[in-house]
Amino acid sequence: MEYYFSAKTRSLAPSAIREILKATSQPGVIPFAAGNPAPEAFPVDAVREISARLLERRPVDCLQYSITEGYTPLRERVRTDLRGRLRLGTDGDSLIITSGAQQVMDLAAKVLCDEGDCVICETPSFIGSLNTFRSYGVRLRGVPLQADGMDVDVLERILRTERNVRFIYTIPNYQNPGGCTMSLAKRRRVYELALAHGVLILEDNPYGELCYEGETPPCIKSLDSEGIVVYAGSFSKVLAPGIRVGYALAPQAITAKMTVGKQASDVHSAIFSQLLVEAWLADYDVPAHIRNICDIYRAKRDLMCGGLSAAQKSGALHFQKPQGGLFLWCELPAERDMPGVVRTALARGVAVVPGSAFAVAAGECSHAVRLNFSTPTDDQLRRGVTLFCRALEG
Amino acid sequence: MEYYFSAKTRSLAPSAIREILKATSQPGVIPFAAGNPAPEAFPVDAVREISARLLERRPVDCLQYSITEGYTPLRERVRTDLRGRLRLGTDGDSLIITSGAQQVMDLAAKVLCDEGDCVICETPSFIGSLNTFRSYGVRLRGVPLQADGMDVDVLERILRTERNVRFIYTIPNYQNPGGCTMSLAKRRRVYELALAHGVLILEDNPYGELCYEGETPPCIKSLDSEGIVVYAGSFSKVLAPGIRVGYALAPQAITAKMTVGKQASDVHSAIFSQLLVEAWLADYDVPAHIRNICDIYRAKRDLMCGGLSAAQKSGALHFQKPQGGLFLWCELPAERDMPGVVRTALARGVAVVPGSAFAVAAGECSHAVRLNFSTPTDDQLRRGVTLFCRALEG
Repeated sequence: MEYYFSAKTRSLAPSAIREILKATSQPGVIPFAAGNPAPEAFPVDAVREISARLLERRPVDCLQYSITEGYTPLRERVRTDLRGRLRLGTDGDSLIITSGAQQVMDLAAKVLCDEGDCVICETPSFIGSLNTFRSYGVRLRGVPLQADGMDVDVLERILRTERNVRFIYTIPNYQNPGGCTMSLAKRRRVYELALAHGVLILEDNPYGELCYEGETPPCIKSLDSEGIVVYAGSFSKVLAPGIRVGYALAPQAITAKMTVGKQASDVHSAIFSQLLVEAWLADYDVPAHIRNICDIYRAKRDLMCGGLSAAQKSGALHFQKPQGGLFLWCELPAERDMPGVVRTALARGVAVVPGSAFAVAAGECSHAVRLNFSTPTDDQLRRGVTLFCRALEG
Repeated sequence: MEYYFSAKTRSLAPSAIREILKATSQPGVIPFAAGNPAPEAFPVDAVREISARLLERRPVDCLQYSITEGYTPLRERVRTDLRGRLRLGTDGDSLIITSGAQQVMDLAAKVLCDEGDCVICETPSFIGSLNTFRSYGVRLRGVPLQADGMDVDVLERILRTERNVRFIYTIPNYQNPGGCTMSLAKRRRVYELALAHGVLILEDNPYGELCYEGETPPCIKSLDSEGIVVYAGSFSKVLAPGIRVGYALAPQAITAKMTVGKQASDVHSAIFSQLLVEAWLADYDVPAHIRNICDIYRAKRDLMCGGLSAAQKSGALHFQKPQGGLFLWCELPAERDMPGVVRTALARGVAVVPGSAFAVAAGECSHAVRLNFSTPTDDQLRRGVTLFCRALEG
């Protein structure tokens, strides 16, 4: 039988990354393609203790239906923390718990966009979010990413000419895949432009806590006196991704509509995960844990960057050392056959993601690959970098 | 600021049920409005044992990213069980794990329907699913529910006249809210009509295991030699709803597209929940557990039906004793002011759901209320029935 599929999902392909991950999940392949936290970065003892305690004292709360907005003590704790520590959120804002930050993108697109509406994204950008927007039939317009964040002149030109722009999607901190961070001046400019054009901003900040040097600049949401920023946060990188707990902090009218959308999507997020996160935030030294995982990832980053420095000096590739996050964006000389390098690397036992996977427009040219340093072991990092450099030689 | 909301979600209201649940969550109100499992129906000891074991032996698997289709051993186990026990699924079918069965409705609507397409539903039907379909901008057409399932003559008429019908949504077993079960003859007829008109069937079966008398008829999916049935199952009623684990068994082309849709929605369902269900199915006596919860719910149903029998005899209300599931559909005489009865009942301390909440069309008239017997304690059942009968007297 021939099945009819909706126009908005007909051309939607599985994420190249997840397909690469499947193809390369066989043992022996070195995983520079993933974005998984390092296993040693999980607070396993804390999770064991909290789980035992919750199931001993409150088993029914761990298993019963819950409310769509999320577990109230968790919502209040995260909201208070964001406000105190990062100056995020006004009295007009509200916070809802989502099934990972990916669901923030899903709900934002669902409630804010009609098919054919326009969403502006950095290019390259996180393929997971791009595919979510595509799954709602929106038109994506890409703004080139520069070392200090998106090109605001191009952004302004698009805002002037495009119709029905619903929001600007940005990952200002340690961008995926670019690795770069938006300057404070650009954050201010993006906010002003959005406000002037009556367009919302969807600020995705999964990596903000993973800062290995200097300081992460203030979030765009911290500038949001006018209620135009939807802020997406996640516990995937600081606690664990498998529990699927993220959140949206946004003007109350928007979170109310997102809640109705979430009710229709999955009723509520797994409640045991939410109770677990709340207890972890309440009873454990989370800042010390984050310092610890930053130490782990800083060392991994340095291992990868160190291993690539000879190739950088020889001109075989170019990268900016990322100051945080999980990714290194590695540009190859324009004359190199980038897809060929990716294939050769895989044949030699290293999986990397072709930069073209992150392009907003289909035909966009890319000479870069994305390398992840959080997933491989230190030994895999050393061997993988050597193998990758050999793949560059052909 | 005035926010722009998408046409498909602009008119979407929070589910009346969940709003009633919120309004009535204060202690003292007797919950006949919910659909929660009884706390004593949760296999708490098994969950404690499995959780401790999983976190001891495989902590990283409990916390790391996983694949979108779901945990492979769980998928295989459920598929084998459905095939062996219920004759569901052919070699052309595939099974994916979802974040509760609600997400099956979400993904089916997302991948199968364009805005303006038609979905045929029983009326009354489960408001959660109706709202999911509405959130994709589909047109709903209702087929009146009869004591032995939907009116197949009306179904045929709609199939003949409506354009772009994408699927027929049905809850054949112990329907929510109607409490009734579709006869085998009607199941065959619905399947034939769908096949003749090239329309899919979305068969939602959350209550099939909760059979208190006689036998549940074969699923429509068991007739599906042609690959036109998407079957939605759930662990919410037999294990626990808070873990959010459901599944879809459907032709492989459809589950493949739903997987791409799910990747864009929430990446994957909480992995700890999936590992928990798999271990429970593998290592515990699940049939004995189901017999046990059926004993609990049969007794609760009998308590409610017994308490209402005098009112039934006096003509103050009418109901069919449901042979399974969690709900009793209670029709009031046509001259009674149904919304007034609901308000009076709430004022007296019993929350019930007005039948109009489950109507497919906005103006549809209803003289019924839905009563749930799984959530209240036995004492609440006795007191609540008395209070409800008094509310009927005015």
